[in-house]
Amino acid sequence: MFSNVHIVLVNTSHPGNIGSTARAMKTMGFKNLSLVSPREFPSKRADALAVGCSDILDNAKLYTDLPSAIEGSNINIGLSARSRRASIPSMSIKECTTYIVNNDNININLIFGNESSGLSNEELLICDYIVSLPTHNDYTSLNLSAAVQILTYELYKSSNQTPDINVKQSKPASSKERNFFIQSLISLLGHTNFITSKNHISLTKKIHILFNKSNLEKEEVNMLMGIISSINKKLKK
Amino acid sequence: MFSNVHIVLVNTSHPGNIGSTARAMKTMGFKNLSLVSPREFPSKRADALAVGCSDILDNAKLYTDLPSAIEGSNINIGLSARSRRASIPSMSIKECTTYIVNNDNININLIFGNESSGLSNEELLICDYIVSLPTHNDYTSLNLSAAVQILTYELYKSSNQTPDINVKQSKPASSKERNFFIQSLISLLGHTNFITSKNHISLTKKIHILFNKSNLEKEEVNMLMGIISSINKKLKK
Repeated sequence: MFSNVHIVLVNTSHPGNIGSTARAMKTMGFKNLSLVSPREFPSKRADALAVGCSDILDNAKLYTDLPSAIEGSNINIGLSARSRRASIPSMSIKECTTYIVNNDNININLIFGNESSGLSNEELLICDYIVSLPTHNDYTSLNLSAAVQILTYELYKSSNQTPDINVKQSKPASSKERNFFIQSLISLLGHTNFITSKNHISLTKKIHILFNKSNLEKEEVNMLMGIISSINKKLKK
Repeated sequence: MFSNVHIVLVNTSHPGNIGSTARAMKTMGFKNLSLVSPREFPSKRADALAVGCSDILDNAKLYTDLPSAIEGSNINIGLSARSRRASIPSMSIKECTTYIVNNDNININLIFGNESSGLSNEELLICDYIVSLPTHNDYTSLNLSAAVQILTYELYKSSNQTPDINVKQSKPASSKERNFFIQSLISLLGHTNFITSKNHISLTKKIHILFNKSNLEKEEVNMLMGIISSINKKLKK
């Protein structure tokens, strides 16, 4: 159960939160923890809070940046309180749990940002979807491991219900394949002067968003790469 | 909201858990905290974990035993992993949240026991109902504040039946705009020899599928048309 789901903590400041996250995960049947440049790990404070969950900390994978942490994944879901402002497609909790419970054949990352600043705009752009946990308007600041606890709890509850018979059989592209295509497209568009130094940031962002929300399949990325190379070939003539 | 509900922590060992509980409560709109003979309170460790929630700690009520803490209440609901063994009536989470949301005119205590030993048999007997939170069979040991977080989250969700944050402000492209873009793309790809008379039908279909599932917005179709015309211009040079 949930062996295809990774909990990814990015830039965690307090090692205690890593320990509490391990415990939150284990109570709901999750085992895979990835840590992207935590301030302190391994850590005694993390161990102290991961009562009975040292296996999760021992097997946690360490990365220096988010792109390398998600290389092998198909779908990246970022947790953020900022869905209203960002133009990345948002999922409700219910949509998110339904999607994950019905797609146990693909690799899924659930990505949580730093305790104070959350996920940066750059990190959010890597995400295919954003999920926001409902909180009271007066005080929205969920503790990091509390957010992990709520999401894994919802997933555990959903997995115990009979899942929808609406399973997707297609083969999604990996993040690496998708990013390679997007980089190739951006490079082509620099060549055609569609992308310039002035509009580079905003257009790159829009292109990421457009193709991230398309849930590209492997075969589709291959076709898109074929399109780009046919154009590049013609331009060289 | 929830002004009639009290979170009651009994014999809490770690003051940090009192601070985390205050934070968990406040994110979900709860304000009333009662502490029954905590090992240490007030406490710097509690303050440190109750980021922005000192009001809840300042207003927390201290009691020496559970009977005096619940004197003014109408209904007492105990949280316990032991509902099956006890003879006190148990409620599911759903029954519990429905009950509380529909009874905002009576005083309700939600009672959480010590971190290691939970509520004693004597304390359980004081409860009108017992609620158990679902956890994975391999590891059922929820952290105290994590349990408070899950229960208050469920209550907040129930009280607020449209909490899913799924705002879409964008302007979808019309079929006409989308098809004009797809036709322009196909015409370009005929020119680059990516589309030939042999593969025309299958590739046209795949391109339609890819861009139809992307739910293109008006602005995105404009960008894609800009991309195509920048390539066409470059090819003419």
